Amino acid sequence: MTLTEPVLAALIVQVLTRHGMSASNARIVAVSIVAAERDGVRSHGLLRLEGYADTLRSGWVDGDAVPRVTDAAPGLVLTDAANGFAQVALEASNSLLRQKVRATGLAALSIHNSHHFAALWPDIEPFAASGLVALTMVNARSRIVAWGARQKVLGTNPMAFAIPRRDSPPMIWDQASSRRSQGDVLLALRTGNPVDPAVGLDADGRPTTDPTAILDGGALLPFGEHKGSSIALMVEVLAAAFTGGRFGFEDGSACFPGAQSSNAGQFMLLADPARSAGASFADRIEALIGRLRAAGSERLPSDARYARREKAQQNGIEISDWAYDRIQQLISG
Amino acid sequence: MTLTEPVLAALIVQVLTRHGMSASNARIVAVSIVAAERDGVRSHGLLRLEGYADTLRSGWVDGDAVPRVTDAAPGLVLTDAANGFAQVALEASNSLLRQKVRATGLAALSIHNSHHFAALWPDIEPFAASGLVALTMVNARSRIVAWGARQKVLGTNPMAFAIPRRDSPPMIWDQASSRRSQGDVLLALRTGNPVDPAVGLDADGRPTTDPTAILDGGALLPFGEHKGSSIALMVEVLAAAFTGGRFGFEDGSACFPGAQSSNAGQFMLLADPARSAGASFADRIEALIGRLRAAGSERLPSDARYARREKAQQNGIEISDWAYDRIQQLISG
Repeated sequence: MTLTEPVLAALIVQVLTRHGMSASNARIVAVSIVAAERDGVRSHGLLRLEGYADTLRSGWVDGDAVPRVTDAAPGLVLTDAANGFAQVALEASNSLLRQKVRATGLAALSIHNSHHFAALWPDIEPFAASGLVALTMVNARSRIVAWGARQKVLGTNPMAFAIPRRDSPPMIWDQASSRRSQGDVLLALRTGNPVDPAVGLDADGRPTTDPTAILDGGALLPFGEHKGSSIALMVEVLAAAFTGGRFGFEDGSACFPGAQSSNAGQFMLLADPARSAGASFADRIEALIGRLRAAGSERLPSDARYARREKAQQNGIEISDWAYDRIQQLISG
Repeated sequence: MTLTEPVLAALIVQVLTRHGMSASNARIVAVSIVAAERDGVRSHGLLRLEGYADTLRSGWVDGDAVPRVTDAAPGLVLTDAANGFAQVALEASNSLLRQKVRATGLAALSIHNSHHFAALWPDIEPFAASGLVALTMVNARSRIVAWGARQKVLGTNPMAFAIPRRDSPPMIWDQASSRRSQGDVLLALRTGNPVDPAVGLDADGRPTTDPTAILDGGALLPFGEHKGSSIALMVEVLAAAFTGGRFGFEDGSACFPGAQSSNAGQFMLLADPARSAGASFADRIEALIGRLRAAGSERLPSDARYARREKAQQNGIEISDWAYDRIQQLISG
């Protein structure tokens, strides 16, 4: 079955409001879920809907949260998400943040007391579509063992970076700080396959290829050895310490059965290239991208996503019967 | 032989001025070289002195450069290094940059038309020592092949991040975007050892363990597969496109025999945690570091460097007779 974006969004809003989210908040969160499903990032699309429902029902996240936006400094917006979803806090901060970057050429948003359960690129794509360079980071509950350590402290701590382009949608990469996702390890468990020894450690901090040992008290390893570990640490510092949010190891979701999100923080930096390099920026980016393609990069960040988006925008978003039935069950149950 | 910091700095200034750098610029550049040697980061210490001399003599870099600092926006300083070393441009921008971050809570410095031939951490340590979070990136001539490509486009593009602490010097990591450095490959060549197949590609874009094939028209691979490639791309965009600097593939040093640095750019972001998370930031950082140590991280970023610094500050900086003789030769020849 194929659905249009508005029809899919309306169904998602029904699921979220059915499980306790306010309609206005649900409309904001639904945008991210629809975007992921439309762009074929299935791991962050409808597959997460059940997790949203469970988390809302657990009482761990506040679906009715009303964020509190503070004008902290000429270059800084400080937003308390009030234990709600980060996208709602971002939407509430949007106009002040844009006003600041217009005024100063550079501005940042610190969100704390927030839950981020979606892909990151939908948060920054609109800013990059207006010509801004955008960088964002979210921390999450502990899953990664820092390089050289035995036990997990850092979250899978994703980061996304958006490069505005003149006549094309922004180039955006969006990646976790772990080598593989928790979902990849779960998939290996389900299919009975071992994982690469660079994926995780067991509960005693020893390398393992056994998915169960990683999931059962073990930890994921960062991508790129000590260098990825540095990135995960930077995300923890900017997304949690700088924003005033909780660290991943302070996550309290265990007391809320069913809760899947983390109460953590999000950092976002916006920079206006027109105020720095000037009008030549767009040409320079095209030159760089042209050179990367000429060097054999057949698939640059977000290429595949935009190709799938184009298809979905022409033909509608394909939903399996199973997924559609599950949505209907979540709406009624 | 052991030397004090000022004595070593004076010798380095003699070498640099002997090869055409102005005394005031040489004093600034010497600070970075002394810091690296003092902290035991030998790859970026005296070992580079000959490269500075050769590059200056080649005419590729301007040792007398007088940077032009522009107040581009309330949050942005834009500095043309005038084909000189980036440290000189940073020093010229320092007071305006600090004034901006005090006023706005967040400020960035865009340096272009600059050469960076040193470690990155000395650039941001002073800012972090005054309580600021600091992130900096430098691009350089093409050496890295983007993930999935066949030919190099991106530079080894280092990035450094500094976390201010209350009663200790800042925690700083500083890392290149390649899995291993060009220096590591040269060392493998000299010792006759093969390199790991994840280190580089040959001139046809095929994996190789032969150091010669990597150095002779081949390329280095990014750390962490496609994720490190994303980081290298971000550095290229922020350090070159955003600042108005040259991309790595536009490097023109080949026409200047002996030139070892790249004419490129540097991006630096400073953020004041006191304006975002408030006074609790310092405690939060200590809590995070404490947790990391408890989880088995025996060596966190910059730990080893500070241990070596302490030793050097007590006993002086140890210099081999060979290195001392080489300095004397560079001063006289």
